[in-house]
Amino acid sequence: MDVPIPEILKKPMEVDEKIMTGAGPSNYHPRIRHAMSLPVLGHLHPETFKIMDDIKIGVNYLLQTNNSYTFCISGSAIECALMNVIEDNDVIVIGCCGQWGTRAENIAKRLNADVKVINKEPGEQIEVEETRIFFEQYHPKVFFLTHGESSTGMLQQNLEQFGNLCQEFDCLFVVDCVITVGCTPVYVDKWKIDVAFMGTQKVLNAPPGISPITFSARAFEKIVKRKSPVKSYNYDAVNLSKYWKSGDEPRVYHHTVCSTLLYGLREAIAIFIENGGLEASWKNHQNVAKHFYTLLEKNGLELFITDPKNRVPSVTAVKVPENIDANEIIKHSMNEYNVEISGGMGQTKGKILRVGLMGINCKEIVAECVAKILIEATRKLNEE
Amino acid sequence: MDVPIPEILKKPMEVDEKIMTGAGPSNYHPRIRHAMSLPVLGHLHPETFKIMDDIKIGVNYLLQTNNSYTFCISGSAIECALMNVIEDNDVIVIGCCGQWGTRAENIAKRLNADVKVINKEPGEQIEVEETRIFFEQYHPKVFFLTHGESSTGMLQQNLEQFGNLCQEFDCLFVVDCVITVGCTPVYVDKWKIDVAFMGTQKVLNAPPGISPITFSARAFEKIVKRKSPVKSYNYDAVNLSKYWKSGDEPRVYHHTVCSTLLYGLREAIAIFIENGGLEASWKNHQNVAKHFYTLLEKNGLELFITDPKNRVPSVTAVKVPENIDANEIIKHSMNEYNVEISGGMGQTKGKILRVGLMGINCKEIVAECVAKILIEATRKLNEE
Ligand SMILES: Cc1ncc(COP(=O)(O)O)c(C=O)c1O
Ligand SMILES: Cc1ncc(COP(=O)(O)O)c(C=O)c1O
Repeated sequence: MDVPIPEILKKPMEVDEKIMTGAGPSNYHPRIRHAMSLPVLGHLHPETFKIMDDIKIGVNYLLQTNNSYTFCISGSAIECALMNVIEDNDVIVIGCCGQWGTRAENIAKRLNADVKVINKEPGEQIEVEETRIFFEQYHPKVFFLTHGESSTGMLQQNLEQFGNLCQEFDCLFVVDCVITVGCTPVYVDKWKIDVAFMGTQKVLNAPPGISPITFSARAFEKIVKRKSPVKSYNYDAVNLSKYWKSGDEPRVYHHTVCSTLLYGLREAIAIFIENGGLEASWKNHQNVAKHFYTLLEKNGLELFITDPKNRVPSVTAVKVPENIDANEIIKHSMNEYNVEISGGMGQTKGKILRVGLMGINCKEIVAECVAKILIEATRKLNEE
Repeated sequence: MDVPIPEILKKPMEVDEKIMTGAGPSNYHPRIRHAMSLPVLGHLHPETFKIMDDIKIGVNYLLQTNNSYTFCISGSAIECALMNVIEDNDVIVIGCCGQWGTRAENIAKRLNADVKVINKEPGEQIEVEETRIFFEQYHPKVFFLTHGESSTGMLQQNLEQFGNLCQEFDCLFVVDCVITVGCTPVYVDKWKIDVAFMGTQKVLNAPPGISPITFSARAFEKIVKRKSPVKSYNYDAVNLSKYWKSGDEPRVYHHTVCSTLLYGLREAIAIFIENGGLEASWKNHQNVAKHFYTLLEKNGLELFITDPKNRVPSVTAVKVPENIDANEIIKHSMNEYNVEISGGMGQTKGKILRVGLMGINCKEIVAECVAKILIEATRKLNEE
């Protein structure tokens, strides 16, 4: 053979169990791990279709919508959202106060959109009034907002007002709900969100790689009437909606979905519902987050988002104390306790630490452990 | 709540174990199922990077290449291949004699390429000489071929000659090796293939949703020098190569890869190597396929690809006997025996049945069972 058998593959792989309290992925529930060990099903088997149908219903509940056009992407939902609603030279306004606004900008530019960015400092809110000025000036076809900025721990306010603004200007409202679904209210229909997508690997404790997304009838109609085809076969919402059977037409093959990821997601939604559903989960995430804030502040640590109501309960950003290297804290936590703490991202790199208390990790005891590690590491590094 | 808790999610899901002898996905090995039940790792953990490194080395072995730019896509590799090498108005020549040529055409048109298709009947070979005529007329930047057409069971010949032709015309050679890797020789370097991608859910018995792909230095250089950005963030080979650390630069976050899918793929490659690697697997797939052909032909069934050397060992296409409904055979096999047989696809729908004897299902006993079912079902339906 030109390329011989590599010896390295003869050694078994090593997978450690860690406490996944970074910004995501979060730990799987043992039942989710079991679900993922089940036998593979074909992408066109009736059992798979049943699981897909259940997931659609579950996602509509989680997103509080009655949309028909709800399905999952094998891949990234943010790209799917933008691919479908943007055509060449379309104006898109992006509210950007962190990593995910920047990602949306990156994608929109690749799609040859006319991109207008409302640029705020990391952690700042996008305001309705400044957005209105952009709308009046540019008359965008699409407006993008991040509901929970995982790079700063910020919760964007006033989504319903933004929704009304979008209606007024006949603009599609696209919202990244990846870290908010399940930890704080998200009402897709009531807030008139046209395209919303959520994460699986955050509050749900489900595997990444399969991303739920929903399109309003208004958004879908615009997609159907596009002048140019969607620039990707895989992300084409019309094709995907047929495979996921959004209408009455027979199902059509689109791609080989990974049944294992569907099992994990289906099981995660089932567990979420068994545990009391949205209200119970919102309350739990808010309570545990508050407990965590108190522990940190009592011990002299500062939160990056100063106004408590603007903090997203799932991911808390803690300021790195002066003269301390963020990486040292992260390393200390992982090496000593097998506990993951994330660093900053983009503009917040080195300035903040991020802690995710999500789903099965959203417990007072976990909050207390992570707080203790943070406090201890800070003291230790201060003494050195 | 606007949308109440759905009752349907309170029932457990049902996942049957089936004999997955359709065109793919194939069954997981029990060790792969175990690997997929392991705890989640972060997309930036050193253990994950180690597994990614091992997979890269394993994929280079499977594809017989020394390329640096080898990685996996969370999603579909065929789209990633074309997204990166096509710019607006670039001429691409596509050899099309089945579903995957048609898919490539669909994707290339979305990318605004100038698409020239060598259109052959399903099951026919693309010939080097007719391709040369296209090259002389259109001077393409990209040439696409499917090595194993899973929609017809055809094995494309003369890849090395096509590789030489592409060199002569300074054209990038893109080859779909999804169903050929592991069942018949594939030599990416020797054949001068510039972009090759393979399937996980076929001969490897690994989960779908994570697709290995490799780029030659020549291809990568052209991608780096593109005039316009790749139209997708997720499929951008330069970003992906940084995340997968193809060069000496530090790793950069790109997207949240699903560690579970990496475990499944890593374990599948390890098992493949333990079982003797490529030569052993080629031999086994060829022998079992031949045994299967003989059993069918002895009992009056006809194969869709008449010349035995043009049959791909992993997926065999059997002509549907006259006056028989293909779906009845498929249903009989699944309902009575829990054995999957696939129907045709696109132009071959209703005309052929497709049987995949791949990886752990590539055994004489499995071939005999499926042959028996096909023969029995045909007799039964003939009598009715
Ligand atoms: C030859 C070939 N190419 C590509 C693919 C990839 O298909 P998908 O996009 O469904 O994963 C397949 C899967 O069936 C295939 O058989
Ligand atoms: C707010 C937010 N949006 C989107 C994503 C999706 O990211 P990825 O493409 O890494 O799955 C993430 C993941 O970290 C996120 O936190």
